[in-house]
Amino acid sequence: MTRLPATPAAADGASTPYALVDAARVARNIQRLNAHLEPFDVRLRPHVKTAKSPELTRQIWAGGTGPVTVSTLAEAEAFAADGFDDIVYAVGIAPDKLRRVHEIRSGGVDLVVLLDSVLQAEAVSEASAAFGDRIPALIEIDCDGHRSGLRPEDPELLRVAEALRDAELRGVLAHAGESYHCRGAAELAAAAENERAVTVRAARTLRQAGHRVDVVSIGSTPTAHFIRDTDGITEIRAGNYLFFDLVMAGIGVCDTTDIALSVVVTVIAHQPERGRLITDGGWTAMSQDRGTAEQDTDQGYGVVLDADGRPYPDLLMTSANQEHGILSLREGSTAALPALPIGTRVRVLPNHACATAGQYGRLLLDQGRPDVGHTVLHRVGGW
Amino acid sequence: MTRLPATPAAADGASTPYALVDAARVARNIQRLNAHLEPFDVRLRPHVKTAKSPELTRQIWAGGTGPVTVSTLAEAEAFAADGFDDIVYAVGIAPDKLRRVHEIRSGGVDLVVLLDSVLQAEAVSEASAAFGDRIPALIEIDCDGHRSGLRPEDPELLRVAEALRDAELRGVLAHAGESYHCRGAAELAAAAENERAVTVRAARTLRQAGHRVDVVSIGSTPTAHFIRDTDGITEIRAGNYLFFDLVMAGIGVCDTTDIALSVVVTVIAHQPERGRLITDGGWTAMSQDRGTAEQDTDQGYGVVLDADGRPYPDLLMTSANQEHGILSLREGSTAALPALPIGTRVRVLPNHACATAGQYGRLLLDQGRPDVGHTVLHRVGGW
Repeated sequence: MTRLPATPAAADGASTPYALVDAARVARNIQRLNAHLEPFDVRLRPHVKTAKSPELTRQIWAGGTGPVTVSTLAEAEAFAADGFDDIVYAVGIAPDKLRRVHEIRSGGVDLVVLLDSVLQAEAVSEASAAFGDRIPALIEIDCDGHRSGLRPEDPELLRVAEALRDAELRGVLAHAGESYHCRGAAELAAAAENERAVTVRAARTLRQAGHRVDVVSIGSTPTAHFIRDTDGITEIRAGNYLFFDLVMAGIGVCDTTDIALSVVVTVIAHQPERGRLITDGGWTAMSQDRGTAEQDTDQGYGVVLDADGRPYPDLLMTSANQEHGILSLREGSTAALPALPIGTRVRVLPNHACATAGQYGRLLLDQGRPDVGHTVLHRVGGW
Repeated sequence: MTRLPATPAAADGASTPYALVDAARVARNIQRLNAHLEPFDVRLRPHVKTAKSPELTRQIWAGGTGPVTVSTLAEAEAFAADGFDDIVYAVGIAPDKLRRVHEIRSGGVDLVVLLDSVLQAEAVSEASAAFGDRIPALIEIDCDGHRSGLRPEDPELLRVAEALRDAELRGVLAHAGESYHCRGAAELAAAAENERAVTVRAARTLRQAGHRVDVVSIGSTPTAHFIRDTDGITEIRAGNYLFFDLVMAGIGVCDTTDIALSVVVTVIAHQPERGRLITDGGWTAMSQDRGTAEQDTDQGYGVVLDADGRPYPDLLMTSANQEHGILSLREGSTAALPALPIGTRVRVLPNHACATAGQYGRLLLDQGRPDVGHTVLHRVGGW
């Protein structure tokens, strides 16, 4: 067994567990989607809910800003404070959040809300009148029965549009949440085409009734990467792709070598007789997301790499307590449990980057420059 | 359908989702364990990993401090800064954390580490010599095969004790993690007695070899509440009990009316044809913990209460997206889906208080005094 000095200085000064972002992979992932969308006449409106970092998000525009999608008003506030002025809040609006929406808009931000009911539309209209601020709204369209939204043929669609009266109907928005259950390029392209066609149909229905529809927005990381036709679409959303994760690799959207987020943990115990190693990174470090459990290859709580990013054959984080991770070999593996001395740092690729990043108040950005160390990316917390 | 004003002021000024703590229930839970342990000659060393709030933890000592257990060095630092000076860090020590341990100890805090291998003991001994600080250590004892630690009969036990040379052997510590799978008082009492007996046996082995063993520490929320004999034990740990949760209720340690933590969310959509309501609180608000899935009664992502804490018959949070919660009736229920207007606030009791509280940077403490509003409890984040 290798002896370790009692107090090796951590190369990066951080205690494990911590979340590490590979800047080169983020840049490659940004470039890849940009290149895929380049031939189409659509705007990319990235969803910032994964990294929740204005600084990292700016890399999409080489340090500038652009249109973004947020999942919380706290994100809207933080991105607005950083200079982002074109924001869609893509969770159905709760009426008592409209004052905060107006306050953000008062700072010169074009913040747009989402809704799918007459009651919400009436609330947005009443708030618009009360504040003297025509709050823009997108009507959520259900393209695949995943969660919420209205079908294009639902008579409620026109009623919602009409109820927006003193507000502004900006357009329609759909999210192909079911695309996360696709496998392979053909299924993903079909999900993208369905998302497009259904949303365009809703826009047409509204226009035929005399409504102006400037925005026809679709998107998810899987469909954005496989869309082949954007006819009638004005903007595409995707968020997870900056980091990607094992679920996305399992769907076929990326390769595990594209995954830009990992969690660095330290081996703290050996149990060779039980075929396992214990680390100081449990579910608080990885999240409890087990998204690959429903896929062809169950990756446990994550795939284990060495400190330089090379995978150990068949080694997974197979179980998690609050502050303890259990590493063992994939079921049926004939590989040997690697002899990792206590104190060894390893990295774990996450099932779901949104969930894992969500466990951290900050991420460390590895820019491949040991001379300058890691940059701290602060994440927006709360709601 | 009830019409809501466009911008009702939230009674507490907080946007949903947020985490609410019922101060009266916390007080009752504190009192209950104190009363249970009162006849025994043991010290209570609560684990602070659930609330991670020095302010709330002080309520155990009527505003004072006492011995605590922590799950991260960040907790140790924050509690030390708040005046807590007797702390056990109950995760196996990683050698490169020893400098931080020494720095915390240099502030006058009796910070104790945990270990179960010769390599760790050597690292702690070397660090003790290098820093001129005899770092105290507890040897972790495995009482039920749950995770880590040494069995009392393992010859490694004495080797670890001997390797502590320049450090200080403070004693032994066990955690009956398997007690979470018990059901009912008899099984819980048996788990507590096993935890006691095994740990005392380890202490005896060490003493017979000439080692001084001042601390014999056991505990988990389930076993602490059902222990009947503490012979040979010096201290008992429990943490989750300040809040309790649905998993603890499922085991039989508490009733759902003892659960002091809930998440307040707002209804944002209706889908009566699918038998569900949608809220603005998804897995980021509740965590992805599905601990009751393995129990007799699967509570989904949580039990839904009205704003005053009364449960809706059979209404559960049955599914979760990142920022959306799905409420529907328990499988097989004959109840009617309650007609909750969009904008209605409801509360969700969590499966696992540690995981749910972990999603928040702050908790709101409801002291039952609408005149003063809620107190903000800041949680210790990171590691």
